[in-house]
Amino acid sequence: MRMYDIIAKKRDGGTLTREELAFAVNGYVDGSIPDYQMSALLMAIYLRGMTDAETAQLTDVMAHSGDMVDLSAIRGIKADKHSTGGVGDKTTLVIAPIVAACGVKIAKMSGRGLGHTGGTVDKMESVPGTRTALTQEEFFRQVNEIGIAVIGQSGQIAVADKKMYALRDVTATVGCIPLIASSIMSKKLAAGSDAILLDVTMGSGAFMKHLDEAVELARLMVSIGTAHGRKVAALITDMDTPLGHNIGNSLEVAESMEVLQGRGPADLTEVCLQLASNMLYLAGKGDLAVCRAMARQVIDDGTAFEKCCQMFAAQGGDTTVLRDPSRFRKAACARDLVADRDGYIVANDVERIGNASVLLGAGRIKKEDSIDFAAGIILHKKLGDAVRAGEPLCTLYADDEALFAPAAEMYLGGLKIGPERPAIPPLVYARVTCDGVERF
Amino acid sequence: MRMYDIIAKKRDGGTLTREELAFAVNGYVDGSIPDYQMSALLMAIYLRGMTDAETAQLTDVMAHSGDMVDLSAIRGIKADKHSTGGVGDKTTLVIAPIVAACGVKIAKMSGRGLGHTGGTVDKMESVPGTRTALTQEEFFRQVNEIGIAVIGQSGQIAVADKKMYALRDVTATVGCIPLIASSIMSKKLAAGSDAILLDVTMGSGAFMKHLDEAVELARLMVSIGTAHGRKVAALITDMDTPLGHNIGNSLEVAESMEVLQGRGPADLTEVCLQLASNMLYLAGKGDLAVCRAMARQVIDDGTAFEKCCQMFAAQGGDTTVLRDPSRFRKAACARDLVADRDGYIVANDVERIGNASVLLGAGRIKKEDSIDFAAGIILHKKLGDAVRAGEPLCTLYADDEALFAPAAEMYLGGLKIGPERPAIPPLVYARVTCDGVERF
Repeated sequence: MRMYDIIAKKRDGGTLTREELAFAVNGYVDGSIPDYQMSALLMAIYLRGMTDAETAQLTDVMAHSGDMVDLSAIRGIKADKHSTGGVGDKTTLVIAPIVAACGVKIAKMSGRGLGHTGGTVDKMESVPGTRTALTQEEFFRQVNEIGIAVIGQSGQIAVADKKMYALRDVTATVGCIPLIASSIMSKKLAAGSDAILLDVTMGSGAFMKHLDEAVELARLMVSIGTAHGRKVAALITDMDTPLGHNIGNSLEVAESMEVLQGRGPADLTEVCLQLASNMLYLAGKGDLAVCRAMARQVIDDGTAFEKCCQMFAAQGGDTTVLRDPSRFRKAACARDLVADRDGYIVANDVERIGNASVLLGAGRIKKEDSIDFAAGIILHKKLGDAVRAGEPLCTLYADDEALFAPAAEMYLGGLKIGPERPAIPPLVYARVTCDGVERF
Repeated sequence: MRMYDIIAKKRDGGTLTREELAFAVNGYVDGSIPDYQMSALLMAIYLRGMTDAETAQLTDVMAHSGDMVDLSAIRGIKADKHSTGGVGDKTTLVIAPIVAACGVKIAKMSGRGLGHTGGTVDKMESVPGTRTALTQEEFFRQVNEIGIAVIGQSGQIAVADKKMYALRDVTATVGCIPLIASSIMSKKLAAGSDAILLDVTMGSGAFMKHLDEAVELARLMVSIGTAHGRKVAALITDMDTPLGHNIGNSLEVAESMEVLQGRGPADLTEVCLQLASNMLYLAGKGDLAVCRAMARQVIDDGTAFEKCCQMFAAQGGDTTVLRDPSRFRKAACARDLVADRDGYIVANDVERIGNASVLLGAGRIKKEDSIDFAAGIILHKKLGDAVRAGEPLCTLYADDEALFAPAAEMYLGGLKIGPERPAIPPLVYARVTCDGVERF
């Protein structure tokens, strides 16, 4: 078998066999196939596409390029979730404790933030003392004992994906639905959970800009997971506006604790309830209405919040900041950005909001960058809100006054105040299961 | 400017500007753009195509990536030809002396053979003593004094093409008309001649398998050359059957001398007359009929053959072998392949004939391979010929008996004898000029 022939086959619109995909992916991982041949194949895939079965094979090959985590030592159904990324996306910190409080095991690996999107592991580490690198033994024991653990993703999961993603990132082959689906699902399959809920974000701040694309990606990922014997569903959620008000690591933890205590922002609470009830549904806890009532109940009776504190405590975290977020270390400086006129917020570019938070120190541009956990933004006015001239739009937090000017320019460059209230997109656009697509 | 954005633009079907093409090509040559980004761009070009104007810009950028030879020190019109490659394609050795004998200057750089196709420079070197590496001063002086010089292509001509072709060769991006056209024409423009005749070969042994493709390639190359102020035309010639009977370096030189002496095979003579008269036409020597008569005349009166001997002598070659080819060193061994039945030759795969000659030692598989000038094949029966069981089909020549078995297997694997005489393709399918396409 020759990589040349595999490239030529895909170039001409052919369907690659599992053997051909394995030859290409495993050869790329072991270095016998050079970057320039893999990038030619990736561009051919980008432009020629892949069949669903072919994408499922690619996913399986990529999953098997690293460790396949065997969660069978953990009793009961294990549930996982994945978000395709967003600004101020703190839902994992809310949903995972809710689901665990309802008796479904969470043995979850999460990522770090890069660029305008944040990562759950960084947010957790803003709670002093929290360890996100557990041994497999510690990880399994914790999930068996308290039902939940969220840790950083092992470097040995889907190693092909790491190398291929880095190449796609510099060869303009990221935005390709079969390649996105295989990248995400290879990691989820390797991570070992039985039930997988996918949060496919859509909008100006997300990979997927249009509903049809987002539904197609969701449908493909659900089909791949189902073909591998997992219970999978997806919600298409809005990413034209950040959920909640807080962006930045400890700021987002604080807001998540408010939701778990039943006093969080309505939009974030609603999306978390929908995501959590879908996870419970996939885990076999009953129909969606029953699952939603269960999720609501564990918020109302405090058990979800206590489950969250229990998880942080088990991982060494100082839970006093969860119970009283005013104890988080504060940023040295704060600055309000104010409206320059009366009107309604008709645009507030979410990618620019994310980039502004990175400029303040809350995220990374390069993988090696360090993070200021206290930095970030609190939004006082969001898309569709009425505002008066001089009223604060948001407050920026940073450790250095000098960071405010570039962050403000970034933020305000995506903001428009107009005379009429704009249409507000729904929080959730659609639900995709192996039975089909339900649009809301 | 970023290579990423250039790749993405072509991926999405955009038209690259001259600045973008120059950034990509020059960056690739100087090493600032890595292989894997160039291969992604080449695959995107393969699948998305290029406009004619874009291809002309690419060609110009590639031509300027190395030396642009200035032939103005040579008086008069300079004519050049290029063949897209074939088996037993010895036309340059015939045409160049004809054209020079008619008073048009030939200051030509030629290539070496690789794979199943041979190269003019190798054929010339089969004449003992011949030098194909002249200094520029020697080259210009020889052309001014005797009107003709054929030398090896300088490593400094179109250096981008060399690097890009090597990458295309391993990433399945060779067979793309805009990339083939820019590769060929960048070298021809850099080589500096005023009139350029293109021999676009077509058939099972050539890049172009179909007439429409061949015409499209020819049309594009003519348009590129014309846009750069050169006189350009193309003939689409058949490459389903080798021209003449001889394949192998000194064997082809011997056959070429027969044509120049007016006693060569009819097919080779006819194609050479058409090619030569088109070169003379481009050089302004009159209409095609006049040019053909001139070409015929210099064969008949012996001046073309004498011009050829003059060229070899000027380059140090032993012209006694040209006047008496029996003086060429002979291969140590010869073997006839015979027909196993009566009938007509209905198939005789030309690529296999070429590969058989390489197996005998007449060509190279890798660039570094050495060549046995005496090795090769003489065809006694060609496509369409009647044959009787036991009659020789061809004679193989090599320095080692052991080479005959694999060469015979290669040759006979592409040969079919059937009961009915097949249709014979024409020698020349079409002529393409800046005025349009003339199909024969």
